[in-house]
Amino acid sequence: MSEMLKVAVLGAKGRMGTAAVAAIDAAPDMELVAALGRSDSLDILVERGADVVVDLTVPDSTEANVRFAVEHGIHAVVGTTGWDAARLAGLQELLAAHPGTGVLIAPNFALGSVLATHFAAKAAKYFDSVEIIELHHPRKIDAPSGTAFRTAQLVAAARAEAGVPAAPDATETELDGARGASVDGIPVHSVRLAGLVAHQEVLFGSHGEALTIRHDSFNHESFMPGVLLGVRTVGTRPGLTLGLDGYLDLEG
Amino acid sequence: MSEMLKVAVLGAKGRMGTAAVAAIDAAPDMELVAALGRSDSLDILVERGADVVVDLTVPDSTEANVRFAVEHGIHAVVGTTGWDAARLAGLQELLAAHPGTGVLIAPNFALGSVLATHFAAKAAKYFDSVEIIELHHPRKIDAPSGTAFRTAQLVAAARAEAGVPAAPDATETELDGARGASVDGIPVHSVRLAGLVAHQEVLFGSHGEALTIRHDSFNHESFMPGVLLGVRTVGTRPGLTLGLDGYLDLEG
Amino acid sequence: MSEMLKVAVLGAKGRMGTAAVAAIDAAPDMELVAALGRSDSLDILVERGADVVVDLTVPDSTEANVRFAVEHGIHAVVGTTGWDAARLAGLQELLAAHPGTGVLIAPNFALGSVLATHFAAKAAKYFDSVEIIELHHPRKIDAPSGTAFRTAQLVAAARAEAGVPAAPDATETELDGARGASVDGIPVHSVRLAGLVAHQEVLFGSHGEALTIRHDSFNHESFMPGVLLGVRTVGTRPGLTLGLDGYLDLEG
Amino acid sequence: MSEMLKVAVLGAKGRMGTAAVAAIDAAPDMELVAALGRSDSLDILVERGADVVVDLTVPDSTEANVRFAVEHGIHAVVGTTGWDAARLAGLQELLAAHPGTGVLIAPNFALGSVLATHFAAKAAKYFDSVEIIELHHPRKIDAPSGTAFRTAQLVAAARAEAGVPAAPDATETELDGARGASVDGIPVHSVRLAGLVAHQEVLFGSHGEALTIRHDSFNHESFMPGVLLGVRTVGTRPGLTLGLDGYLDLEG
Repeated sequence: MSEMLKVAVLGAKGRMGTAAVAAIDAAPDMELVAALGRSDSLDILVERGADVVVDLTVPDSTEANVRFAVEHGIHAVVGTTGWDAARLAGLQELLAAHPGTGVLIAPNFALGSVLATHFAAKAAKYFDSVEIIELHHPRKIDAPSGTAFRTAQLVAAARAEAGVPAAPDATETELDGARGASVDGIPVHSVRLAGLVAHQEVLFGSHGEALTIRHDSFNHESFMPGVLLGVRTVGTRPGLTLGLDGYLDLEG
Repeated sequence: MSEMLKVAVLGAKGRMGTAAVAAIDAAPDMELVAALGRSDSLDILVERGADVVVDLTVPDSTEANVRFAVEHGIHAVVGTTGWDAARLAGLQELLAAHPGTGVLIAPNFALGSVLATHFAAKAAKYFDSVEIIELHHPRKIDAPSGTAFRTAQLVAAARAEAGVPAAPDATETELDGARGASVDGIPVHSVRLAGLVAHQEVLFGSHGEALTIRHDSFNHESFMPGVLLGVRTVGTRPGLTLGLDGYLDLEG
Repeated sequence: MSEMLKVAVLGAKGRMGTAAVAAIDAAPDMELVAALGRSDSLDILVERGADVVVDLTVPDSTEANVRFAVEHGIHAVVGTTGWDAARLAGLQELLAAHPGTGVLIAPNFALGSVLATHFAAKAAKYFDSVEIIELHHPRKIDAPSGTAFRTAQLVAAARAEAGVPAAPDATETELDGARGASVDGIPVHSVRLAGLVAHQEVLFGSHGEALTIRHDSFNHESFMPGVLLGVRTVGTRPGLTLGLDGYLDLEG
Repeated sequence: MSEMLKVAVLGAKGRMGTAAVAAIDAAPDMELVAALGRSDSLDILVERGADVVVDLTVPDSTEANVRFAVEHGIHAVVGTTGWDAARLAGLQELLAAHPGTGVLIAPNFALGSVLATHFAAKAAKYFDSVEIIELHHPRKIDAPSGTAFRTAQLVAAARAEAGVPAAPDATETELDGARGASVDGIPVHSVRLAGLVAHQEVLFGSHGEALTIRHDSFNHESFMPGVLLGVRTVGTRPGLTLGLDGYLDLEG
């Protein structure tokens, strides 16, 4: 029989933390050994023998949390933002000194979104044209979304590397903004609509055909399967992994 | 037995004219009595006893063609552009002197497109948010499309009349163009993609729900059913009708 | 200044009732005067001077609730099922004796869904082909959905009335079920997918074009704008109205 | 400077052959050296020094054509059907004796369709639910389409290999056909609609999210970019390759 993975959650009182606690509790192969808030001591992780810690805290505390985990041989799955190049470099140094420990830092745990971005980057060089439409609830303050921005950058890079020319576009007369924003040359359109949650379409087109890759996030629990996949995998992937796609089996 | 409608086509050598000739020829209730080009005499219409003439010529000749038809008691279905207010006023005067004759001038004969615009205008006041995405082949020189422009205007007018407030939008940081063009306050996004033909989506949203009205034009024969409907109906609608929706049964 | 509408909710502890209480509370033109559960006396409605009662109870009690309201001159907006022909006939008789009072009984308060069905019925006779795809969460026990069933019936009736022939279909070899269920001759396809809520597409097609009317219900608050519209309108529509579309301004 | 590829087309008078001749003629890196019909001698391929032959003939003649090409050291790109296991085994034997020669036999040259199927197979194991909707013109005689059938089989195989349980489905009451056909346990729905050409959606869903991969074929030239890719690549891939995805760069 396989043993239960002992999992701890940091930031357990936040919205994502609450969902993570529930999901880990419900997973048949995991045991929730700690659900810690801001004022709890990290020593509890060691006392409870955590195998994996899930960090869903805030930019100010994530670095100290993850370093503590690595120093104690606890694998970490990190959804908190704020990991700049300097922090990442420091963490990589620390991991070199703890070669059996794994850390996953991922900006996005929604499996469908990660797959959609991966597929879009793969398809990018095979089509004459590509544009991105992202659709969100109207309380969002930035446009385009971070995911659309990153998708456009990856798509543009793949096309540049393959030497694909710019998409054809005969537009002569444009009402300002109609053709969207340009992210590395890829048009990105941002829709803000009451009722929606978070959605993205990448549209590819060539002679007589189109390929559309659409991701819909209907609620904020959509990242949970990705967190569980991270928890299950991180122990087998020593060192630092950036992005959940590093854990997906997408070759060939 | 109902008699066959005798139909003539002007501009019969053009792309739309060729399709119209074929469609009328194939219609079981119509007889094609003339298919005239630029150099043919309009007298042929009278000689052949045309009941209805379909004008698919050019802005320079459409006015003379239609006036000739009305003066000879021939109903006219007109797909040619170039009918400004002065021409329309003159035609209306002429029709007043020929009270049994009907003329339909329509910018768009694709039934699905006409219905989509009509439904969008009807739905406009019941939702918090509305945006338009139009998608076309990359050889199109204007953005947004004329249909998207007109749809946005009708939607905006319906919302203004009903006193609907502006759609919520918390955008603070926008990459230039991301939120589309604004047509009377309605965001319009124009996609140009190899492989596509002509497509439009009107998206409405409110608390927890969305309504999407999408029209796809897959090829240039899509206007033919509308032309045939016009030919069948124009004889029963004396005077001037602007827009095919005037012939559709959409009340109630 | 317009006075506040005094509104009471029956079934206030249920899921829909809770949402209705919150929505009425938040509406600037309404005052929530009572939120009653199963054991509360209906006399409270009279004591508190309710103008409109919203019934979101159960089939067993809705008839008595509505009859009590009508007898006391209180308008009623009813989302409870269970109103068969006999109950409706009895209610209509009662309303004849209370000519100033209005009752709205609606199977569906999601405005977008009501509009989608209305538009589909209007478009039905203008296209060669029509099919319906409904998509729901996998906990749904019936297929097709009630809404898809009713939409198909309305579409089929509109086509029959206009004499539209059956949609073309050359299928000779079919894997059992591939072409969907047939509701009055209209193919209906039911998708059951984890993550989804309640969605429906009506697809129309003719020569070279397609019209798609799609409704998405993302959560169960989507019926609230329709309930509020019902509450605001019911006092001006004496007698019995079946279906929220009777209150929508869809003519012309 | 790279030399021009010398390309010959067999079946050059057919619909696909005509399109291939035009596409090769227009490709800046290819020279069309022969466009042969049924009665032309294959010796012309040798006389003209063809590097690659594109076979778009009929099941009865494709085997002899391809064997002739391989025996003369000419690479072959084959879109003709009719290659059963026996023919393939014979061809593989012949290729073993001509180790520098490559043959690509592909059931589908539309890049977008090949990518869509590939991505669907990759995504299959990461979601709780999956269903397929394919939509075609109403002149199609089989349902589901061959592409939908094959996609379902690949998706089912990937899920079986990963041990993914059956998708949740609480359906108790089903109108016959509503839940579609079952291909290896994957529900497949076939829509037949006037105006459409060839379209397919693969829908994946899990907790709170959905991923949709859609391919649209708008006209029959959509296979041309795939044929050109085959012609450019076949010379660098000795032996037999089945399926265009073998030439796509989809790893990692």
